Amino acid sequence: MVGNGFMGAAHSQGWRVAPRFFELAATPETTVLVGRDEHRVAAAADNWGWHETSTSWRDTIARDDIDVVDIVTPGDSHAEIAIAALEAGKHVLCEKPLANTVAEAEAMAAAAERATEQGIRAMVGFTYRRVPAVTFARDLVAAGRIGQVRQVRAVYLQDWLRDAESPMTWRLDKTRAGSGALGDIGAHAVDLAQFVTGRQLASVSGVLETLVAERPLLAEGRGLSGTAAAERGQVTVDDVALFTGRFDDGVLGSFEATRFSTGRKNALRLEVSGSDGAIAFNLEDLNSLQFYDATADPAVQGFTKVLVTEPEHPYVSAWWPAGHMLGYEHGFSHQARDFVDAIVRGEQPRPSFADGLQVQRVLDAVETSSGAGSAWTAV
Amino acid sequence: MVGNGFMGAAHSQGWRVAPRFFELAATPETTVLVGRDEHRVAAAADNWGWHETSTSWRDTIARDDIDVVDIVTPGDSHAEIAIAALEAGKHVLCEKPLANTVAEAEAMAAAAERATEQGIRAMVGFTYRRVPAVTFARDLVAAGRIGQVRQVRAVYLQDWLRDAESPMTWRLDKTRAGSGALGDIGAHAVDLAQFVTGRQLASVSGVLETLVAERPLLAEGRGLSGTAAAERGQVTVDDVALFTGRFDDGVLGSFEATRFSTGRKNALRLEVSGSDGAIAFNLEDLNSLQFYDATADPAVQGFTKVLVTEPEHPYVSAWWPAGHMLGYEHGFSHQARDFVDAIVRGEQPRPSFADGLQVQRVLDAVETSSGAGSAWTAV
Amino acid sequence: MVGNGFMGAAHSQGWRVAPRFFELAATPETTVLVGRDEHRVAAAADNWGWHETSTSWRDTIARDDIDVVDIVTPGDSHAEIAIAALEAGKHVLCEKPLANTVAEAEAMAAAAERATEQGIRAMVGFTYRRVPAVTFARDLVAAGRIGQVRQVRAVYLQDWLRDAESPMTWRLDKTRAGSGALGDIGAHAVDLAQFVTGRQLASVSGVLETLVAERPLLAEGRGLSGTAAAERGQVTVDDVALFTGRFDDGVLGSFEATRFSTGRKNALRLEVSGSDGAIAFNLEDLNSLQFYDATADPAVQGFTKVLVTEPEHPYVSAWWPAGHMLGYEHGFSHQARDFVDAIVRGEQPRPSFADGLQVQRVLDAVETSSGAGSAWTAV
Amino acid sequence: MVGNGFMGAAHSQGWRVAPRFFELAATPETTVLVGRDEHRVAAAADNWGWHETSTSWRDTIARDDIDVVDIVTPGDSHAEIAIAALEAGKHVLCEKPLANTVAEAEAMAAAAERATEQGIRAMVGFTYRRVPAVTFARDLVAAGRIGQVRQVRAVYLQDWLRDAESPMTWRLDKTRAGSGALGDIGAHAVDLAQFVTGRQLASVSGVLETLVAERPLLAEGRGLSGTAAAERGQVTVDDVALFTGRFDDGVLGSFEATRFSTGRKNALRLEVSGSDGAIAFNLEDLNSLQFYDATADPAVQGFTKVLVTEPEHPYVSAWWPAGHMLGYEHGFSHQARDFVDAIVRGEQPRPSFADGLQVQRVLDAVETSSGAGSAWTAV
Repeated sequence: MVGNGFMGAAHSQGWRVAPRFFELAATPETTVLVGRDEHRVAAAADNWGWHETSTSWRDTIARDDIDVVDIVTPGDSHAEIAIAALEAGKHVLCEKPLANTVAEAEAMAAAAERATEQGIRAMVGFTYRRVPAVTFARDLVAAGRIGQVRQVRAVYLQDWLRDAESPMTWRLDKTRAGSGALGDIGAHAVDLAQFVTGRQLASVSGVLETLVAERPLLAEGRGLSGTAAAERGQVTVDDVALFTGRFDDGVLGSFEATRFSTGRKNALRLEVSGSDGAIAFNLEDLNSLQFYDATADPAVQGFTKVLVTEPEHPYVSAWWPAGHMLGYEHGFSHQARDFVDAIVRGEQPRPSFADGLQVQRVLDAVETSSGAGSAWTAV
Repeated sequence: MVGNGFMGAAHSQGWRVAPRFFELAATPETTVLVGRDEHRVAAAADNWGWHETSTSWRDTIARDDIDVVDIVTPGDSHAEIAIAALEAGKHVLCEKPLANTVAEAEAMAAAAERATEQGIRAMVGFTYRRVPAVTFARDLVAAGRIGQVRQVRAVYLQDWLRDAESPMTWRLDKTRAGSGALGDIGAHAVDLAQFVTGRQLASVSGVLETLVAERPLLAEGRGLSGTAAAERGQVTVDDVALFTGRFDDGVLGSFEATRFSTGRKNALRLEVSGSDGAIAFNLEDLNSLQFYDATADPAVQGFTKVLVTEPEHPYVSAWWPAGHMLGYEHGFSHQARDFVDAIVRGEQPRPSFADGLQVQRVLDAVETSSGAGSAWTAV
Repeated sequence: MVGNGFMGAAHSQGWRVAPRFFELAATPETTVLVGRDEHRVAAAADNWGWHETSTSWRDTIARDDIDVVDIVTPGDSHAEIAIAALEAGKHVLCEKPLANTVAEAEAMAAAAERATEQGIRAMVGFTYRRVPAVTFARDLVAAGRIGQVRQVRAVYLQDWLRDAESPMTWRLDKTRAGSGALGDIGAHAVDLAQFVTGRQLASVSGVLETLVAERPLLAEGRGLSGTAAAERGQVTVDDVALFTGRFDDGVLGSFEATRFSTGRKNALRLEVSGSDGAIAFNLEDLNSLQFYDATADPAVQGFTKVLVTEPEHPYVSAWWPAGHMLGYEHGFSHQARDFVDAIVRGEQPRPSFADGLQVQRVLDAVETSSGAGSAWTAV
Repeated sequence: MVGNGFMGAAHSQGWRVAPRFFELAATPETTVLVGRDEHRVAAAADNWGWHETSTSWRDTIARDDIDVVDIVTPGDSHAEIAIAALEAGKHVLCEKPLANTVAEAEAMAAAAERATEQGIRAMVGFTYRRVPAVTFARDLVAAGRIGQVRQVRAVYLQDWLRDAESPMTWRLDKTRAGSGALGDIGAHAVDLAQFVTGRQLASVSGVLETLVAERPLLAEGRGLSGTAAAERGQVTVDDVALFTGRFDDGVLGSFEATRFSTGRKNALRLEVSGSDGAIAFNLEDLNSLQFYDATADPAVQGFTKVLVTEPEHPYVSAWWPAGHMLGYEHGFSHQARDFVDAIVRGEQPRPSFADGLQVQRVLDAVETSSGAGSAWTAV
């Protein structure tokens, strides 16, 4: 695995825990953890249970005893590592977003396609697809339980940038982060909406906005000199992204991504309205799915709060008895399971790099539309 | 109508509004308002739309042009007025509790039975039965939609006595109020549970408790003299009533009534669990009913939040379109409608005085049980 | 009052009930009900408690004993009646939308402005402002309790057009209804957002969409002849309106109005995020307001569900004790109270016709934007 | 670890995961898994990551390289194993209930007390104490944030026995299970209430009830012969336990445990009302705590839904960013952490065996009371 930030902890937990609960087609070994800083990567490997460490991803992907490369670095390094790993014949799991630009994402998707011919698999890590309630929502929609899909609402609301005096970070720097709320969390909203409805966005009209233009710099030496405290950095990414999208079959959806929605900590919400029903999901209530069945006895229609913790629900039977809650990191075990199984069965794991590229194109179209007065822009 | 307190406002609203929305079998006239204080009753009559006033309920019930007597005085005067009115050949609607003692309630029920032979009707005012969601819950249970009833939970939680320094009132004086939380709000919980399940409590085991034994007296002159502020009155009623009841068919239920449940303003809640489903209601969310259907597709089972505002729901078609909320006082219009219609059709309106007596017996049995170390006591 | 449809019942209830609960500066009389059909207006007057009826609004507004004209007809007749009434020196309450076109609304606002000089008042009926939780939300925002307003989300979701086979009605005919979801319910979302934030929308970018293009005609004789059943009418209004708006101070808001949101019966929802807090409201839970205080102890921050039924909340002290729910029609009593009081005090009641015109301009700008590929359009 | 049932999986996950997220004072090794069936224990050890297996707990506790014994067998074997382990100088973690009888629990508590003198620690596994929202509730109560505790409501509602045709199991056999809902889940409700309030129950009045007296036997050969299907076993434990308890300081609480509450999957709920506030928790919403602050500005009082996922909340900073949900098994990591840390620091881990004994006494008193017509029974 390449990368030792927060996502590294989540992925490590996925790799370690999946074989404890699922019957995997093959048992993953957590062999080498790669990071730039020798000491930090050693500490992380110790914490997370990796056998060896390295400061060179190139050396690591050259090793014969490595079959899978899991990339959890920031987005600007994804393309180089992933393409090299695929060309070295390694299966690749790459954290979202696939890349910071469409061009990089295209190169990655092309590399993945070439690799596929050699039986090498690539997957991008939109793990929220693998929350049981989300997978189950997809199943209900696919089975026609809400009839014809008519409307989609998808938002991802957080509030950790609410305080205008919270400091500047690399996530607010367009060069390194690619975009702001749009790519960081809007990408999840787009993937979720597309996954659950089984449709792809074809065009968008939107607007990006920066609410706090400057933030205090956490400069080295800050606090030591009188002047440093006053230094401010320029926020070069969007704080809020609002857009309307039209899916390939004409259905309209509304989208919002923001890290300024006071009081909303992790509210990735999706509502899909159909001719015969509706589903609604909220990541802040991740074990539940709201389901409305418009074909039921009218007198008792209403949104049913389904606790998605029953053995018949996706992934659940591997875990605990009914009514026992799952948490955030369970999705990473599900991801590890699905990825390993797809590799062994010789199938294409989803979301593929092509799926990741498509999301990237949606984000790119939103930026273009925003720059063009919200003109409708094809994906 | 006899009485000009808070319930008088609610009953007046019921009488005035019912004929505006329902096709009544006869149109009620709000003729005479009776109260002890000439000036206050005049003001109330003016506010509430009564044509005349009187300070003598005896004179009023003697009038030939009066067909219906509505009693909204405190409980200690119910028996005398109701029995006299029934004997005078007037139909009587009496606010709950039917009386402060079982003996009075028995006399009233006997009077009502005698009156029935003359075609004179008597009803007691447990209006929460007529919240559409409650009536609908009863309908679902009666129709077998939750299967065999197995468990009942009923609580009525308020918090207006939370502050130990809030003053002494007549409601905390056993002589005048009869009991505390038990009769004031516990009576509603009992009636609701019996109404929705179609069963009657046969025996109880319970405990009554006074949490704040003394409260400041709102003496006249208080604040004028230094000593008055220190005077305190003795609370002689229960602040909390906790009891378990066994219904006539053996089903167990748990009950609680308290005016000390911090943060709960008007939480009359009922949950009935059956072999094939369950219903749950909360008066703080009075337009909704939670319904669980254990016979549905297991993968989508859950509590369904039914907005009880559809035309097919009880009473609703007379009001507004679907999704438009009803409030507290709508129950009084429903009560007025049902009472008038029963009178004209020559049917017994429910809850009858016999029903009110039965509730009184339950409350009495709880007091007895509490005094006997929670020994099971027959109703 | 001119008009005897559904809104007539609600307004009548407002006029009748307001003086029973509030101390009005003057007591309104429900004198004449005007309608086109003699028999239907007579029946409505009887139901709703109007003393006389008329089939001529012109005759009625000419009467000396009429001080106030309340217009609850469809939008295409508002301008003519309101302007005539104002010119006849009558105070006018006009149901929303103010008019079907901006031109008509402008004429009405101009007439209202001229009338003001004579002490004649005009108000438009956006009653949802007067739901206590909404007024209270406005108060919290105005008092700075959520800090600087940053983001607004407003939707009005219903589902009564979900069934593609539900019949054609005049509300789906652009000539008569002006627009579809946009004007019918989107207007409420716009007014609510502007009222609570104290801001006005300055420009919009949006899209209107018709989801079901043809519906069965409820032709006379339908069902009698074999051919009639197959006849279908063209839906000429929007079924869904999605738009982004920029307020006069630059704040962005997202808006949606639809009558196809399966399972949502009357979900007028507003969320306002500020630098120090947030408020969220849903008309399906009309006695509650969600409030987030970002200045509180961080460990216990969260959305607080405030039951807006306490005496200190707007309008509430006139009604019932804490925890007793209000319903849909209470807003009409509040409206009657506020209108009468403003007239007597010689103040401008709000929302004024100018406010109504401004909403109309927003709706018009959305239509223009939708026709121009969602280009940003000034209001 | 002794035992390879469902709780074994949860404990194993706790031991494995705790050192990955917490800085433990010592690092636990998952050395030997002990079970009766050689093959099953081998399979479990493989799944759960134990290095060795054994079929003799006596041999295992005799080993010098074993410091800690974790007992996850059914309750009837706890006493023997735990006492032997403590006498062998091993620290013991024993799954709840401590034992099936008070006598056994007393022997265990005595053994633990003797062991303490040697620096050997014993703890019982009421893991729900270590759900962050529960620990935080305890902290709020202890800090006086709800004022003086006045009322407690604790229920544990499940529905997995709802179907009268679901088969007989050992959990319904008093000889093996000790009791039914009372000990299985009621014990959790008792521990939770005592833990959060910092009080102990001193006396109880209650009733136990069996709702379905006979259930089909899952006999071997069932389905093969025509007669087997008709064989039924006798349910000898309670299906529902309802009781009222009085805490040592006089506070009253109501308790219910049932596995027949249709639609409730894992609803361990606690509400504590105090003079200045209240807290409410539901295990079906395990990342939230409802908090009511009666000392706040009255106009914005209400239950605040606190997402207990912030770094300042107990245990949370070790896991994920704010708003990322934890699940059922996280409590087992917290338990492993706290147990190891207490051992290394030489402190008594809680809940101690004495705490477990006290819960056992409460359960015993409920049984006694139920057998004595709900007479109040001292714990």
